[in-house]
Amino acid sequence: MNGRVASDDRGLAYGDGLFETLRVSAAGTTPLWPRHRARLLDGAGRLGIPVDPPALERCLEGALADASGAGVLKLTLTRGPGGRGYLPPESPTPTLFARLGGLPPWSDEQRSRGVVLGVCDTPLGLDPLAGCKHLNRLPQVLGRREVAAQGWDEGLMLDEWRRPVEATAMNLFALFGNTLWTPSLERAGVAGVARGWLLEQAAAAGWCIDVRMRPLSHLRAADGVFLSNAVVGVLPVRKLAQWVWPVPEPVRRFQRDLDLLFQ
Amino acid sequence: MNGRVASDDRGLAYGDGLFETLRVSAAGTTPLWPRHRARLLDGAGRLGIPVDPPALERCLEGALADASGAGVLKLTLTRGPGGRGYLPPESPTPTLFARLGGLPPWSDEQRSRGVVLGVCDTPLGLDPLAGCKHLNRLPQVLGRREVAAQGWDEGLMLDEWRRPVEATAMNLFALFGNTLWTPSLERAGVAGVARGWLLEQAAAAGWCIDVRMRPLSHLRAADGVFLSNAVVGVLPVRKLAQWVWPVPEPVRRFQRDLDLLFQ
Repeated sequence: MNGRVASDDRGLAYGDGLFETLRVSAAGTTPLWPRHRARLLDGAGRLGIPVDPPALERCLEGALADASGAGVLKLTLTRGPGGRGYLPPESPTPTLFARLGGLPPWSDEQRSRGVVLGVCDTPLGLDPLAGCKHLNRLPQVLGRREVAAQGWDEGLMLDEWRRPVEATAMNLFALFGNTLWTPSLERAGVAGVARGWLLEQAAAAGWCIDVRMRPLSHLRAADGVFLSNAVVGVLPVRKLAQWVWPVPEPVRRFQRDLDLLFQ
Repeated sequence: MNGRVASDDRGLAYGDGLFETLRVSAAGTTPLWPRHRARLLDGAGRLGIPVDPPALERCLEGALADASGAGVLKLTLTRGPGGRGYLPPESPTPTLFARLGGLPPWSDEQRSRGVVLGVCDTPLGLDPLAGCKHLNRLPQVLGRREVAAQGWDEGLMLDEWRRPVEATAMNLFALFGNTLWTPSLERAGVAGVARGWLLEQAAAAGWCIDVRMRPLSHLRAADGVFLSNAVVGVLPVRKLAQWVWPVPEPVRRFQRDLDLLFQ
């Protein structure tokens, strides 16, 4: 689990690979695994990395066998070693491994009252692999350094036209009347597993779903704003610069429903 | 040299690092090392990765001691292991290693008659670390796969407005009368060590230097087009789709002058 990888692995050389970060329940289950697996297989298809689905299941099961209680399981898949410069080898030997870790340290108060968001200067440019959870994450690393330097809880990352795309490690949502809005991820961003689950739940519950790019100022009139990812679940946002939002009941319900999967 | 790296290294997790690819002469020297070192230190500064310059020199010297004749030396510097998600540790323990390899297989004929270029579909979006030779290289990997699939020698990568930025692994130049043009690398691309050397040589030799973004069609009227990198030197371009260029004497001179450094 805490192994080593060949120094000529293309994951290290070029970020030529993908990862998934799964929340593990106290009972050692991973209820969102089918969605994580689907995203990983989709990304591998786009990158042209061959995957053996049974090997994926064995890797997951082997890691879960070592898990003791709730936590996070990170799966990494790279194209493996070789190739001539950027050119991948014709028949790659992918590298696949899992690592266990603890849940991130969000407090009950942050989960209940909401978090403080800032706006990162680091832009999210056009990504030819938008939606994929690939290993090219320097913009997020730079954004997360801004969050720490500014003392925010999380940071909103904007595209070149200053339209929100996502937070550094979470997707963005806002409520407007009976509409649930989240940015489109066609040009940049990670199509979060929790985001997909929430959009389906919301549509089934009768919400109008609005997935498109909007200016930052769109958020000002929101009834409520929240973030999501598959590890943390739903985090309400209470403040962004001079804007303050309450935590409306539907946001608490999304949070509760997603948490219920892990009980 | 052919070692292994911890599987939680941030270079592997997020491409959180930099690399340099140096040409080693038959005599075992690396004449462009000061320029490679300057770019690596600049990138490390932008990323906030601490570097110990004497350790860098020792790593280079250790690798060169193992070199036997002409080849390529690749230096990789990552932020090392640790951190909480995208957030880097406050005091990183960087990973630094060198690997030796052979020169890429460009033929004498390609170096003399020129190469065939294609236009990649994969775009180069805005990169907050434009100019740096960082480890987030998936666009180049995708571009290089296009080159192989199409049977070109190299591929031109364009920005979102279809303006040339660079080739997948080389910088782009073109001659127009007494002007040497190369794209600006303020939004994307790698500020090549050979590119920097060539621009200085050309300016000293009286060329007008034009560094800015231009539409793809700008190339049509060029007197000559060429590519450069620190390992291959100068490669003339003879063809891009329906456009064909001769190899004018100044391109041969740039090629010869750069090659002379390694003799």
